[in-house]
Amino acid sequence: MNTENFGSSERLVTAAYVRQGAQGRRGHELLLRALLEQGKCPEDGWDESTIELFLHELAIMDSNNFLGNCGVGEREGRVASGLVARRHYSFQPFLFRLIHGIGRSGDISAVQPKAAGSSLLNKLTNSVVLDIIKQAGVRTVTNCFVVPMATGMSLTLCFLTLRHKRPKAKYIIWPRIDQKSCFKSMITAGFEPVVIENVLEGDELRTDIEAVEAKIKTLGAENILCVHSTTSCFAPRVPDRLEELAIICANYDIPHIVNNAYGVQSSKCMHLIQQGARVGRIDAFVQSLDKNFMVPVGGAIIAGFSESFIQEISKMYPGRASASPSLDVLITLLSLGASGYKQLLKERKEMFSYLSSELKKLADIHNERLLDTPHNPISLAMSLKNLDENNDAAVTQLGSMLFTRQVSGARVVPRGSVQTVNNYTFKGFMSHTNDYPCAYLNAASAIGIKKQDVDIFLKRLDKCLKASRKGKEKSVNEICTSNTGTEQLEDQKIQT
Amino acid sequence: MNTENFGSSERLVTAAYVRQGAQGRRGHELLLRALLEQGKCPEDGWDESTIELFLHELAIMDSNNFLGNCGVGEREGRVASGLVARRHYSFQPFLFRLIHGIGRSGDISAVQPKAAGSSLLNKLTNSVVLDIIKQAGVRTVTNCFVVPMATGMSLTLCFLTLRHKRPKAKYIIWPRIDQKSCFKSMITAGFEPVVIENVLEGDELRTDIEAVEAKIKTLGAENILCVHSTTSCFAPRVPDRLEELAIICANYDIPHIVNNAYGVQSSKCMHLIQQGARVGRIDAFVQSLDKNFMVPVGGAIIAGFSESFIQEISKMYPGRASASPSLDVLITLLSLGASGYKQLLKERKEMFSYLSSELKKLADIHNERLLDTPHNPISLAMSLKNLDENNDAAVTQLGSMLFTRQVSGARVVPRGSVQTVNNYTFKGFMSHTNDYPCAYLNAASAIGIKKQDVDIFLKRLDKCLKASRKGKEKSVNEICTSNTGTEQLEDQKIQT
Amino acid sequence: MNTENFGSSERLVTAAYVRQGAQGRRGHELLLRALLEQGKCPEDGWDESTIELFLHELAIMDSNNFLGNCGVGEREGRVASGLVARRHYSFQPFLFRLIHGIGRSGDISAVQPKAAGSSLLNKLTNSVVLDIIKQAGVRTVTNCFVVPMATGMSLTLCFLTLRHKRPKAKYIIWPRIDQKSCFKSMITAGFEPVVIENVLEGDELRTDIEAVEAKIKTLGAENILCVHSTTSCFAPRVPDRLEELAIICANYDIPHIVNNAYGVQSSKCMHLIQQGARVGRIDAFVQSLDKNFMVPVGGAIIAGFSESFIQEISKMYPGRASASPSLDVLITLLSLGASGYKQLLKERKEMFSYLSSELKKLADIHNERLLDTPHNPISLAMSLKNLDENNDAAVTQLGSMLFTRQVSGARVVPRGSVQTVNNYTFKGFMSHTNDYPCAYLNAASAIGIKKQDVDIFLKRLDKCLKASRKGKEKSVNEICTSNTGTEQLEDQKIQT
Amino acid sequence: MNTENFGSSERLVTAAYVRQGAQGRRGHELLLRALLEQGKCPEDGWDESTIELFLHELAIMDSNNFLGNCGVGEREGRVASGLVARRHYSFQPFLFRLIHGIGRSGDISAVQPKAAGSSLLNKLTNSVVLDIIKQAGVRTVTNCFVVPMATGMSLTLCFLTLRHKRPKAKYIIWPRIDQKSCFKSMITAGFEPVVIENVLEGDELRTDIEAVEAKIKTLGAENILCVHSTTSCFAPRVPDRLEELAIICANYDIPHIVNNAYGVQSSKCMHLIQQGARVGRIDAFVQSLDKNFMVPVGGAIIAGFSESFIQEISKMYPGRASASPSLDVLITLLSLGASGYKQLLKERKEMFSYLSSELKKLADIHNERLLDTPHNPISLAMSLKNLDENNDAAVTQLGSMLFTRQVSGARVVPRGSVQTVNNYTFKGFMSHTNDYPCAYLNAASAIGIKKQDVDIFLKRLDKCLKASRKGKEKSVNEICTSNTGTEQLEDQKIQT
Repeated sequence: MNTENFGSSERLVTAAYVRQGAQGRRGHELLLRALLEQGKCPEDGWDESTIELFLHELAIMDSNNFLGNCGVGEREGRVASGLVARRHYSFQPFLFRLIHGIGRSGDISAVQPKAAGSSLLNKLTNSVVLDIIKQAGVRTVTNCFVVPMATGMSLTLCFLTLRHKRPKAKYIIWPRIDQKSCFKSMITAGFEPVVIENVLEGDELRTDIEAVEAKIKTLGAENILCVHSTTSCFAPRVPDRLEELAIICANYDIPHIVNNAYGVQSSKCMHLIQQGARVGRIDAFVQSLDKNFMVPVGGAIIAGFSESFIQEISKMYPGRASASPSLDVLITLLSLGASGYKQLLKERKEMFSYLSSELKKLADIHNERLLDTPHNPISLAMSLKNLDENNDAAVTQLGSMLFTRQVSGARVVPRGSVQTVNNYTFKGFMSHTNDYPCAYLNAASAIGIKKQDVDIFLKRLDKCLKASRKGKEKSVNEICTSNTGTEQLEDQKIQT
Repeated sequence: MNTENFGSSERLVTAAYVRQGAQGRRGHELLLRALLEQGKCPEDGWDESTIELFLHELAIMDSNNFLGNCGVGEREGRVASGLVARRHYSFQPFLFRLIHGIGRSGDISAVQPKAAGSSLLNKLTNSVVLDIIKQAGVRTVTNCFVVPMATGMSLTLCFLTLRHKRPKAKYIIWPRIDQKSCFKSMITAGFEPVVIENVLEGDELRTDIEAVEAKIKTLGAENILCVHSTTSCFAPRVPDRLEELAIICANYDIPHIVNNAYGVQSSKCMHLIQQGARVGRIDAFVQSLDKNFMVPVGGAIIAGFSESFIQEISKMYPGRASASPSLDVLITLLSLGASGYKQLLKERKEMFSYLSSELKKLADIHNERLLDTPHNPISLAMSLKNLDENNDAAVTQLGSMLFTRQVSGARVVPRGSVQTVNNYTFKGFMSHTNDYPCAYLNAASAIGIKKQDVDIFLKRLDKCLKASRKGKEKSVNEICTSNTGTEQLEDQKIQT
Repeated sequence: MNTENFGSSERLVTAAYVRQGAQGRRGHELLLRALLEQGKCPEDGWDESTIELFLHELAIMDSNNFLGNCGVGEREGRVASGLVARRHYSFQPFLFRLIHGIGRSGDISAVQPKAAGSSLLNKLTNSVVLDIIKQAGVRTVTNCFVVPMATGMSLTLCFLTLRHKRPKAKYIIWPRIDQKSCFKSMITAGFEPVVIENVLEGDELRTDIEAVEAKIKTLGAENILCVHSTTSCFAPRVPDRLEELAIICANYDIPHIVNNAYGVQSSKCMHLIQQGARVGRIDAFVQSLDKNFMVPVGGAIIAGFSESFIQEISKMYPGRASASPSLDVLITLLSLGASGYKQLLKERKEMFSYLSSELKKLADIHNERLLDTPHNPISLAMSLKNLDENNDAAVTQLGSMLFTRQVSGARVVPRGSVQTVNNYTFKGFMSHTNDYPCAYLNAASAIGIKKQDVDIFLKRLDKCLKASRKGKEKSVNEICTSNTGTEQLEDQKIQT
Repeated sequence: MNTENFGSSERLVTAAYVRQGAQGRRGHELLLRALLEQGKCPEDGWDESTIELFLHELAIMDSNNFLGNCGVGEREGRVASGLVARRHYSFQPFLFRLIHGIGRSGDISAVQPKAAGSSLLNKLTNSVVLDIIKQAGVRTVTNCFVVPMATGMSLTLCFLTLRHKRPKAKYIIWPRIDQKSCFKSMITAGFEPVVIENVLEGDELRTDIEAVEAKIKTLGAENILCVHSTTSCFAPRVPDRLEELAIICANYDIPHIVNNAYGVQSSKCMHLIQQGARVGRIDAFVQSLDKNFMVPVGGAIIAGFSESFIQEISKMYPGRASASPSLDVLITLLSLGASGYKQLLKERKEMFSYLSSELKKLADIHNERLLDTPHNPISLAMSLKNLDENNDAAVTQLGSMLFTRQVSGARVVPRGSVQTVNNYTFKGFMSHTNDYPCAYLNAASAIGIKKQDVDIFLKRLDKCLKASRKGKEKSVNEICTSNTGTEQLEDQKIQT
């Protein structure tokens, strides 16, 4: 309420109490002011009442919420369903709130005349996210924006932008990572991926720097759109050697795009990017919103070190875009605060150590090995040698057993799987190499994981491994049925 | 946002757009000001965004929402469950919103130092409700308050207040109405109801004014706490003769409390109260919130013509009370506006005519009669002579059949039912008289009823009457099962 | 979804995934079953998705949510405002959810034919609350119900019920406690409170058992409605000597009603009630919902040891009542679980020790004393001798200073305050005795309090005491203004 | 609740009532079954309680909502902020609901093992949307999918897919439409737009069919990726001659992509597509979700006549995508039903006639002309000759005046504006031609428009035109200030 309305309230309620109330309101306004002036993630998270107030204020700045507005355009931010309206902080069918999305036809980062609130939201989100990327380790980043597309599609957008700068280029140099959307991001953009096989160092699969350089020489730098490297990945693959790749890119004047999908959560991945940019060349790095910031699937951040290049990418998006991912990540960061986010990163790291040591113990018991992959800060792999030797199907069946027992995210990788993606054939698909020495199982410590996730996982894995070995496992369906009773209750005990 | 924050926003978003946004906000503030200054129900309903903004502003005026608050009392408005918090416009467990309820230990209408917002809410609700009661027909009402209790318990509170003014009184004069909580309201307050049987005039059951006066003479005015009359009731009973009762009360200096349970929705009931107060004595009239204002069950309004007497009642409530009913009715009235509420009343009246004429037609077809009860503006009764004569249980069974077919609110009244309530025995219970000439069925046109309610009701009633007469009805369970198929879909057709 | 619909889904989505989904659903159903069969508070709290599912299922059992329902009654659970509807788990104006409230005209605990879901809600709430009261220490309690009224009004309802059993009684014996609604609860019910002054033992004010017995003899047991005792209260008063009072009540055959307002949170208060009932007579004990279960203001629990007596009270409530408090406390207990609730009690106790030791230190510094009140498990008192001696108004001013600095719940008690409530004059009002030896300040450790509440409180109290002593405090308004700047930020630091 | 739990409930609540409740539930299940089995938009809209129930059921089928789930993957659907969780039907931080988005790395239409519910949602949405496209006029459409990207980016995806089928192609034939994102969609995909200027027929700007064919001959069909035509557009441009274009495409074997941005709402636009596909070739047509279905900005539908081609496009999206637009459109269509949606289309058409006749009257008064554009079913244009002749800046200023007076969507188009987009220079930008004979103003009748929008618009336009002519308009700021008072209230009157 404005000053006049507080004044009017004093006729109804004791003036001293109203003044106290007005002062209470002022506390929230002070927080808003700090955000608007500094554009940084507040160190301490806001409570939800402040966030709600803030969103409310933004929403009523959009023209569709003006009481006297009349609309005669082709897109007037009307909403037919009350349920949809409420999902977007908008309560009245045919008269509502943050509906306008972000950007204009020309530029996803542009300000909209109809929607001052949505525009402010967009600007602040990009500003707050930039601040967090800096705090997470890439201190010299200069610009970034949130785009409501998957990481893969966002990489495609980067490649499409580079096309205009390198009209002759046909190839993208790509150290192999067995994840379909990485591969597709290049195909969709209309380029030919040049796959660089990884080299085995101990248990780890690492970038073959010499092969990269050799390939560049063979193809000719001007025919190469960019090097497309990866940080976060499943063990036993480890993050690419970004420093060396960045130096090569600088030397040959080739752009360098980094797929940092879920790397913001790891200081190691962020450090690699910072170092790469310091000693060589990185043009843009792309990260998923949901994997790093615990929001629903659907958005990515494109960031870089050249303000103009990042702006060029943002101008390539034709049309206005969903504000939903921006809104989600802004709310999340405001509610966590920088300190809350860093606390989550710290806990993830601790949980990684815990998962690592416990998985090692379990591996020992079952006569398997926790693969030695010190360069991978997020994902672990445990060998499945015994299973693999006894029975071809046993490895796959272990996956089904874990799925049926409601373990999600654990991934079994059998040997010798072959997969064709857009006419390219990958041998040993899923293992990032043609013939990894053993089958294995992956588990990761991602942001938000809790000790009980690890404990239940290990318990269930232990059971499944025993069942597999004893050949007692008859069929997945049987387990499915037998599982619901005591086992479920037993597991719930652990959770509490 | 305050002026400073709009200023800061101009650094991020084009100033002209921000100013447009600020102007948009001002539109909402203007509406708030009108409410705060006039305390009346706005003529036109507010849209939900204005209502939400208003509630938000009230909530942050309560001390539990101050960012820097610390609480060391025994009641600090903390909330443990997020779901509960959200139900009450409060989102953060342990840090929240409109939680304080209304009133203080001494007085349910008092202002709370900890809760300026909740206090304002309370004051405004009572003020807006008063305005609506005036507009609904009781123009000279001077004071009212919302109390979070049933109509019956609210009547009890009125009687308890009167006790202190009439210490010798033991009796309450009560023209019979067969509704348990009316009767219990007197018992609970510790008084002895003196039942005045109704007289049959044509089909109508009306107040026996002479019997009332005779009883007063017999018992002695000083021994009588009050006359307790009723407006809204099931046909063939009709509203009490309020004018005559009010004159008697004035003449004998006896208080007069009116149970106006669902009478606000009828201009006739309200007119009776207005006339009664004009020509005689009415001390308080009590009405239900849910039945008149389409809010959830749980609140009532106690209103009257003497400011000091209504205040005395409000001071009798020991303790702080739930703000939930106040909040519900305020939101409802703000969203409807006075014009919207009056529109609902108009539609109800039209639907009453429609129900009346259609029910008459159906009665004719089935050789029954729509009872002639012109003084009852809400409820209708149709005779069930044929059913009653053929078979004792048939009338009751008709009720079950309607229930199973998802007709709610229709009520069958067999003859000769006897019921004992708190040691008092009522003959012909439910029919407001010892021996009404026939069994009958009630249907009402209450606020919010729609044409499709009437149409489906008549269709189902027609079917049930046919089935009853043909004796085809075998058992309730069978119908229940057979009903779900085509019939349900058929009926849904009508609804759309 | 039912089995058929899961089957239909398999045509659209891989059958194995759908089965997994169906199994997931079953996990929630298992929890519901346990609740329905045992009627106890689950040991471990449910997550919100289970609670929401449960409420959803209850809501669609109410007739107003039947798709084919037609309503022709006078109360059909219609809702005019979408915002109100959503507040009550109901989304569609004119067609909705848990709106019916609880009980029927005759009995607040009765089942409603129109509302199977609301009825189930009511039964389960009372059952779960009963379980928690047992676990909190009153193991032999046999019956209880939630009533949507303040503690005071609930006490009134108990007294009104007793009236029917003891028609001659006029007096209520009441060991003095200076809280208005306790006193009013007796006045409202129409009885004359007989105030028994407390005796000073050390710093504590305790029940004068001899005076109680003497008074009973003087007045005659048959003229006494009941003894009305209190557990939870502000120091230096301590809980009444329930055992002795209960024995007297048993000996003289006088009912005994205990005001246990915020005593559920303290094992000591609950133990007193358990002991009283074991060795003597307690008819009912009444507790607040908001103060013990962290829900919004508006409900109370009436509990006792005789099933029939508690039922009698529930039958005294005339009319249907708001389901809101029942819904709030059920959600809260389901989400906390018994273990979560007990954890909150444990933390409260620890925080009491902390507050106690820290306040003692502060008192020493300021040359004051923490009063020695070992029998009070919730509230503490610190003397304000120095303030009192220097300046009459200084004590009151300290209260204003704390209020302005957003300390809520701390209460200063000057000497010699006189107050008249309903024609009774209390000397030394607020201090539970005519002339306590010194002025003092109260602070309590209530459920949900956090360490930061204590820390900020002590810091601000320290400042205020210093300011008071130095006479530097000029006017409350000045502080109010000067306070908003650095101080507020400083304090917020502590909070994080 | 399942059968067992209904059974258990009968122990607590009368069995007949519980059975009634179970039957009520069954009514909702029947609607779900019809949807799952037929995959069509229900003829009559569902009420919100059914929709909520349905979403609830979908959500608990996703693995993140399994009570016993443990997650050790890199993406586990965790959510950090409660506010974000609630926005997505998910209430518990770290344990929640529809978070998984849609599709898998390989294919945006693929089923996810972790998320049976989200997968089902995705399948059903595409199926229901397909049904509506058929009902809206394109009866022979065979396949479609919702993609969470702007219309422009979706067109880009179509072009990128075509690239793989036509590796030699460099050009896209594009009848000029002055909307930036249409143009950018081709640039971003890496193609060279070949602009075909429109021809003036009366007041209308129409496709130059001969120029299109001539250009194809010049460039060579194999060098042309596709023809990119447009239906919905601002008057005086009218929808492209789709039939003729489609025949040319068929003859020369060139793909044809139609930008049908907001054309679903117009039977004329849909008819053009249907006819084009019947007589010639249309490969895909793309439409905006927000502009046609009244949901927030952020999604589009890609539809076509060849199932395999549409699948190919869906497989080009690299990565998992936001489910938010799918969820919004599904909720909207379920709540409207087919009949509700068609009613909206009917109202839009009527409002178009009304706007047309009223604008004509206003034009006459101001000595201007409503341009004669009978082929444009949505947008209208009124000449601004007088303004243009008097003063260069007057046309632009009229736009500012309308903006300040809260008219949104009205667009003024001055003559001679020049704009460069991605190195291409457009003369007469905004008017779809190099030199349109006059300046003009656009207004549209889009879905959801109401009579009051039209009335207020005309009233304000009238005022602005008068002010402009009299040269009274001093500065935008002045108006801004003077406007807030009486004028705002006056306009609000009209609205009610």
